[in-house]
Amino acid sequence: MKGEQGRSFSLAELAGRFGGTLLGDPDVRIHQVAPLETAGPQELSFLTNRKYQKLLSTTRAGAVLLAEDYAAAARLPRILCKNPYASYARIAALINPESRPPAGIHAQAVVDARARVAATASVGPCTVIESGAEVGDEAIIGANCFVGEQVRIGAGTRLHANVSVYHKCEIGQRVILHSGVVIGADGFGMAMDEGRWLKIPQIGRVIIGDDVEIGASTTIDRGALDDTVIEEGVKLDNQIQIGHNCRIGAHTAIAGCTGIAGSTTIGKYCMLGGNAMISGHLTIADHVVVSGGTLVAKSINSPGTYTAVFPMQPHAQWLKNAALLRHLHDLMETVRSLENEVKKMRKG
Amino acid sequence: MKGEQGRSFSLAELAGRFGGTLLGDPDVRIHQVAPLETAGPQELSFLTNRKYQKLLSTTRAGAVLLAEDYAAAARLPRILCKNPYASYARIAALINPESRPPAGIHAQAVVDARARVAATASVGPCTVIESGAEVGDEAIIGANCFVGEQVRIGAGTRLHANVSVYHKCEIGQRVILHSGVVIGADGFGMAMDEGRWLKIPQIGRVIIGDDVEIGASTTIDRGALDDTVIEEGVKLDNQIQIGHNCRIGAHTAIAGCTGIAGSTTIGKYCMLGGNAMISGHLTIADHVVVSGGTLVAKSINSPGTYTAVFPMQPHAQWLKNAALLRHLHDLMETVRSLENEVKKMRKG
Amino acid sequence: MKGEQGRSFSLAELAGRFGGTLLGDPDVRIHQVAPLETAGPQELSFLTNRKYQKLLSTTRAGAVLLAEDYAAAARLPRILCKNPYASYARIAALINPESRPPAGIHAQAVVDARARVAATASVGPCTVIESGAEVGDEAIIGANCFVGEQVRIGAGTRLHANVSVYHKCEIGQRVILHSGVVIGADGFGMAMDEGRWLKIPQIGRVIIGDDVEIGASTTIDRGALDDTVIEEGVKLDNQIQIGHNCRIGAHTAIAGCTGIAGSTTIGKYCMLGGNAMISGHLTIADHVVVSGGTLVAKSINSPGTYTAVFPMQPHAQWLKNAALLRHLHDLMETVRSLENEVKKMRKG
Repeated sequence: MKGEQGRSFSLAELAGRFGGTLLGDPDVRIHQVAPLETAGPQELSFLTNRKYQKLLSTTRAGAVLLAEDYAAAARLPRILCKNPYASYARIAALINPESRPPAGIHAQAVVDARARVAATASVGPCTVIESGAEVGDEAIIGANCFVGEQVRIGAGTRLHANVSVYHKCEIGQRVILHSGVVIGADGFGMAMDEGRWLKIPQIGRVIIGDDVEIGASTTIDRGALDDTVIEEGVKLDNQIQIGHNCRIGAHTAIAGCTGIAGSTTIGKYCMLGGNAMISGHLTIADHVVVSGGTLVAKSINSPGTYTAVFPMQPHAQWLKNAALLRHLHDLMETVRSLENEVKKMRKG
Repeated sequence: MKGEQGRSFSLAELAGRFGGTLLGDPDVRIHQVAPLETAGPQELSFLTNRKYQKLLSTTRAGAVLLAEDYAAAARLPRILCKNPYASYARIAALINPESRPPAGIHAQAVVDARARVAATASVGPCTVIESGAEVGDEAIIGANCFVGEQVRIGAGTRLHANVSVYHKCEIGQRVILHSGVVIGADGFGMAMDEGRWLKIPQIGRVIIGDDVEIGASTTIDRGALDDTVIEEGVKLDNQIQIGHNCRIGAHTAIAGCTGIAGSTTIGKYCMLGGNAMISGHLTIADHVVVSGGTLVAKSINSPGTYTAVFPMQPHAQWLKNAALLRHLHDLMETVRSLENEVKKMRKG
Repeated sequence: MKGEQGRSFSLAELAGRFGGTLLGDPDVRIHQVAPLETAGPQELSFLTNRKYQKLLSTTRAGAVLLAEDYAAAARLPRILCKNPYASYARIAALINPESRPPAGIHAQAVVDARARVAATASVGPCTVIESGAEVGDEAIIGANCFVGEQVRIGAGTRLHANVSVYHKCEIGQRVILHSGVVIGADGFGMAMDEGRWLKIPQIGRVIIGDDVEIGASTTIDRGALDDTVIEEGVKLDNQIQIGHNCRIGAHTAIAGCTGIAGSTTIGKYCMLGGNAMISGHLTIADHVVVSGGTLVAKSINSPGTYTAVFPMQPHAQWLKNAALLRHLHDLMETVRSLENEVKKMRKG
């Protein structure tokens, strides 16, 4: 894919902007970024995994981003940098600026007269913004969104199409909410009373810090009494569910399909694998890694990696082992009585 | 958070309305509900878990709801009641009435001339209601919703923004559907025919009973031939998937991210933990509890709690145990031959 | 449920159209399809599972579809065919044609002047179609959808209400996207740089082949550099998450709540059970079956069924066995030392 609007940059310009040591022809023009396997002479590639090092000798890329100790690993024009993946991210963003709709409120948007929308913000068609809501400078609210009463949306934040934000929730600056996201629906709270569930009013809010990104169809419930809080820099993948009164620590990243039950606090810089499940009312320390598919039913107090996954096997083998697993306790008893017998025999 | 519109009530008024024995100053004015730790002198708190009893001596709450046998556990003004959590739910709802949009159809809604919308109902902007649909008294249809042909929506029901209800589905009275909910999409039915999947038309409906609440982005598929049925009082959390032709028994509560495959019947008053998975064509008895993360592959005929979760461990320990689990069968064989040898030795 | 518009067909007409050997009265009129248990004299039923054979003697159905070797299993009028389930699918579709909105762009749709919408296509109210997008012949775009810049939607494709398709994605012909589907949101890609996550621009697209069906609230992320590809005939249930740069092989069927992490390639004609999780950067061969709830963390090179599910038990039994599972390694050690002792004793 070509860079938008035919933007291109010389290698010297890129090294000048983002730092690093340039080796080879500084005038190579870069039109796009691409993987080593498919990059052509106008494209910049990068190596971040030793596993792919051999591709350096066969790639047709015009230039490559390498870690500093890889200077000699390639002959083609290259920029040596501390963190090639970060440099790649910055250069890719420069070459591929996001398409921005024009500022202003679309004629078919429905914005309450008591909402305040910055003049530099953009509000798409068929989007509804209710009374008392505020939309900050250069924010972009896509088509078909709902922004409830007294919601605050920070400067530079983007809601893609079909996002719903319930009343009173607060979204920070430079936040990205993808399509289908629902912020601030009622938490799952009810009291059983004489055979019927009574709804517990959910009167807290959702507070989302700056620089958070939230993937498609992820849902974050409002607090029951206090707020649900997503701290700055958190990155959430698609289809994640976060229950009421959770707090997700700054810069934590959570992969898709993960569920976090109510009132759980996750530390900073954690990484949760896909389809994990964290029970309610737990505390997870900073820098914890939870493997994909793991159910966490107890608090975790120390950094480290934690796992709870049944190992996959061909079905016939699984059947045998799973059946035995149900009787692990019996097996244990058998082993214990064997131990006793052997002891006796030795003595006797 | 302050109660809306500055509503406040004396303790005597609250005890009068909802019952219970009032001890202490009946004139304390309650402006909001709050947890014991953070409640102030104008706030009412509650104790529902013995674990937090010690907070009664330090709380700054103006009053507290307590179970009848806790009369002596606190000195502050208190209402003794049978079910303090239920009383709290009722009082919180009184103090925090939901914001209701005005009755009537918004000028930017698109309502077919052959749809019938009660005069006391409210239809939000950019919402589409198709031919033959009916919306009952005091129902609220939020912004950006879709209500298909011949859908029936009962009195007092609320659809939050961005809800989709396919044709012919029926929603009872006082139902709450949160944003992103999809009711009545086609079930997952197809026949393999000469290397290609043929779609099975899904001609059943979804029927939802009274007093059901359905969380954000939960999806319930229409039946293939018969209907999918959610009985009265069922409470569904966010991101639940219910397949075609399921029946969920009255007053069952299901936590987030749970999937129920097609044609499964769940009993009444069941509780399913988060991220559980129930296979298709099963029957689950009344009063069954399924732990979070559990895959249920067989019918369950007796009440009780059922679990299937690999225990979490630090990754290095998990690796050891998971590897052995693959060879549990071999371990069993070893133990059996040991048993035989020991038997022989004893005899010999 | 009656067939729409009172359509009915004689058994002779049905056998003539779809093939098969008709036995019994050819003039029986069929108004609808129904299960054997509930079908009445104007309804056609079918037997696809030997388990239900005994219902053939009690059913009140007007006629039945049977496999060829079941000719003698019933007395009622019947059509013998190779694949009764496929015949049933075709007849059900004939009797229950989908309701189609009229061609044309609804007055309350917002279609950019630079979008091209075929004259025979239908665009619903409150739907937004951006610049450069193309909508093919007889395509149906439901209410409240978003179709981004330069999206291509093939002939005969249907988007139900509240679907979002991001810029530049391509949807084939005769594709069905159910409500809440999000195609082309950014993949989950970021680089850690000095304590903060940097976003990796996601500049690939999503390419969806012909005859694909995608269930409610399923999300498919756009590629980081290359495209995410869903090949022809793939069937995806509800609430599935497919990460960036995945490729799903033709005619593969995936059940609800399953997650597939980025850069994984799934073969053709695979079947993935509900709530499965496939890790990133894997390759799954053609014709692989993954059981529901299974986490796949390694590539699978041979066809077959693969499983990884902890067996469910009553909670008290599970507690015992799960606790032992944490110490499986210790049990193994004990068994080994027993073996040694027994060996020694035998020698001694």
